[in-house]
Amino acid sequence: MSGRNFPLPRGMRDIWMEEMAQRTWINKKILEVFDRYGFQLVEPSPIESLETLEAKCGSAVRDEIYWFEDKAGRKLGLRFDLTVGLARMVSNRPDLALPIKLGAISNMWRYDEPQHGRYRCFYQWDAEIFGSVEPEADAEIISLSMDVLENIGLKTFEVKISNRKLVEGFLEEIEIKDLDRIEAVLRIIDKYRKISKEEFTEELKKLGLDKTQIEKIFMFISIGGTSEEFTKKISEISWRNIKIEKGLEELGRLFDDLKSFKKAGKCILDMSIVRGIGYYDGIVFEIYDKAGEEIGAIVAGGRYDGLCKIFGRDLPATGVAGGIERLMLSMMKANLLPSLEKPMRVFVVAVNQAVREKVLEVVGKLRSWGIPTEFDLRTRSLTKQLEYADKFGFPVTLIVGTRELEKGKVRIRDMKKREEKEVEIERLRDILSGHVNL
Amino acid sequence: MSGRNFPLPRGMRDIWMEEMAQRTWINKKILEVFDRYGFQLVEPSPIESLETLEAKCGSAVRDEIYWFEDKAGRKLGLRFDLTVGLARMVSNRPDLALPIKLGAISNMWRYDEPQHGRYRCFYQWDAEIFGSVEPEADAEIISLSMDVLENIGLKTFEVKISNRKLVEGFLEEIEIKDLDRIEAVLRIIDKYRKISKEEFTEELKKLGLDKTQIEKIFMFISIGGTSEEFTKKISEISWRNIKIEKGLEELGRLFDDLKSFKKAGKCILDMSIVRGIGYYDGIVFEIYDKAGEEIGAIVAGGRYDGLCKIFGRDLPATGVAGGIERLMLSMMKANLLPSLEKPMRVFVVAVNQAVREKVLEVVGKLRSWGIPTEFDLRTRSLTKQLEYADKFGFPVTLIVGTRELEKGKVRIRDMKKREEKEVEIERLRDILSGHVNL
Repeated sequence: MSGRNFPLPRGMRDIWMEEMAQRTWINKKILEVFDRYGFQLVEPSPIESLETLEAKCGSAVRDEIYWFEDKAGRKLGLRFDLTVGLARMVSNRPDLALPIKLGAISNMWRYDEPQHGRYRCFYQWDAEIFGSVEPEADAEIISLSMDVLENIGLKTFEVKISNRKLVEGFLEEIEIKDLDRIEAVLRIIDKYRKISKEEFTEELKKLGLDKTQIEKIFMFISIGGTSEEFTKKISEISWRNIKIEKGLEELGRLFDDLKSFKKAGKCILDMSIVRGIGYYDGIVFEIYDKAGEEIGAIVAGGRYDGLCKIFGRDLPATGVAGGIERLMLSMMKANLLPSLEKPMRVFVVAVNQAVREKVLEVVGKLRSWGIPTEFDLRTRSLTKQLEYADKFGFPVTLIVGTRELEKGKVRIRDMKKREEKEVEIERLRDILSGHVNL
Repeated sequence: MSGRNFPLPRGMRDIWMEEMAQRTWINKKILEVFDRYGFQLVEPSPIESLETLEAKCGSAVRDEIYWFEDKAGRKLGLRFDLTVGLARMVSNRPDLALPIKLGAISNMWRYDEPQHGRYRCFYQWDAEIFGSVEPEADAEIISLSMDVLENIGLKTFEVKISNRKLVEGFLEEIEIKDLDRIEAVLRIIDKYRKISKEEFTEELKKLGLDKTQIEKIFMFISIGGTSEEFTKKISEISWRNIKIEKGLEELGRLFDDLKSFKKAGKCILDMSIVRGIGYYDGIVFEIYDKAGEEIGAIVAGGRYDGLCKIFGRDLPATGVAGGIERLMLSMMKANLLPSLEKPMRVFVVAVNQAVREKVLEVVGKLRSWGIPTEFDLRTRSLTKQLEYADKFGFPVTLIVGTRELEKGKVRIRDMKKREEKEVEIERLRDILSGHVNL
């Protein structure tokens, strides 16, 4: 039972202090933006009934998530995103006034193959608006997403926008009308950036699409650019049906709104953006870091007016999620991860064992003033204590000795300048709060 | 597939915005104290190998936790506390300089019977010191715990302290020496507050204890009081062995340290405190809210020098955990849960649909100044928009109308005073930041 290691299960990891401090900082920056937009933080249950997780995507989802039976034989699953939980929460609360804006920052689990920077437990920030059909709500979501990135200091991103109605309308035009077939094609288009052109063609062929259909898909997903460029290109194409018209109208209003928000500059239209997840049915978007496209989308979202209906309530919705781990990869590339040194930390040193209780008194006093203070917990020698304080970067040490104590004083040491001075204990508060120079 | 509810599994719950805002505030207050004491925040993996969770407590733990097999047949479990994960983390990192102080605030899962205020997923704050055998480390942990409670405003608590060595030394004196028997008796003593005297006696009898042994246990667990009262009572008792002597010495030094920290006033000795969990082996303590003893211990901890050894590293350790839900019950009783109204939130109202894009411009501008700003996402009438802003307690609305816009102005409305005034859009920043009176 002793002497051996207990490793973590495959794909799992701990978060250590340096990374945790960075995450705390990132969360604070995200919450600042949530506040500015009126999103309120909630936390959906991490464990759901399996049938809730299957409600939209069917039992195929079992292959991709952690699910199990509890001791009473109930089928449970760990959440795979925050959107499903938030939609279930709001659907069960008809008393809430609408529209409602909810946010969450938390972890989730997927039984994926672990890869570099990809774990089986990971974190997302998430923001959703329930109860508005207007493109203004989509504009809110996209604008918020951009402000989240800008608030953490990222500037090199690009928002790629499309509309599921438009894509589905186009697929109808090329005679792909069956729902299963539409979803299968969308899943392949969603992989367009990750696989080669040959693989892409091959996968479409496997679905039974003919050469003309595949050519038209290539043509369609290449449509994009600024809203002006897009309008020009799309006007040259003759396909029109109700879904296409509706999709174009929504995109037009969305871009008007983004212009009013002064956010259109970093937004382009890109028909290859469809989102793989089944529940989207309107405007969809992904944000890429132009300095690190290989990281994949760092933010993604869209409208899913149909999801809440499954949970018993006919409620339009639009939202966004961003992976914290991917965001941190982008931030690392751009050298944006903050170093989070504490400005003032004091280490109180005991000259000998006789003054240890006095050291604790000084420590207690400093802490009661709100000053981060530590002392030796290993009865080490004076030299060893100073070495420790130096190694851990304490800018200031207080040296408690018998002679100075008799005068109600301690020695204060500036660890960088290597200067010492005697001061009265009662003056420490002013000195250490930075109000008075040493 | 539509129109029905998807309830949460038994014992699970969502956290809604009001409670989440309170939790965010509580976490901030806890982290302030962590900072003051030099504890660094980490997050151990929520999923562990089942054998890690079983390492100390044996396979009996399976009955009390969520565990399952993943798709590759690995036995996994959801963590039941943060201590085990932190101990495993530190044990696997011999490169870390010691002592190290780690903290965590997160959720965990236990397959308990759900009760009032008790769920199968709950939150704890947790602080641990690894690498110090000194009672100063225990004093740090107790002092930190008291500061955590005081920092959230709780004043009516009492810290009850004992020592596992002392209790085990006493049990040896009454001829309870077998490890399994000792642990069985400790588990019964741990329930002393929760069951009747008759049930307590009955459970000890079932273990095969005779009348004299049971009487002596009643006598022993009634020993307590201030350190002076305790010293007097314990000196009247003749039992002495190595464990008792060691336990008394540790408690003596602990109280000296607590006095130096000016924390002894709320600390008493209480031999009925033993902690149910198997891994404790030195000083143990529980903190109760004197205004709500029925809530149970709101904080509990102790020394567990043997736990890390199981994870492959001989590392002394002492720590503490407090349940967030119980803490919130105590805070509710004492009316300490803060109301977290935002001081400034602005709702921008459109007089008609023609000015909606202008509304978005104003909203975007205010947000870029860091002012929380919202607008109507449902194309409602002017009256309905004002009603909504009133209902949701926005202190200020801005009314955007065609005539005012022509002059570069909007109407600003103080929702409480029901006063309106025309102002230039560019002056809004100063007015809404509170720098200039309306």
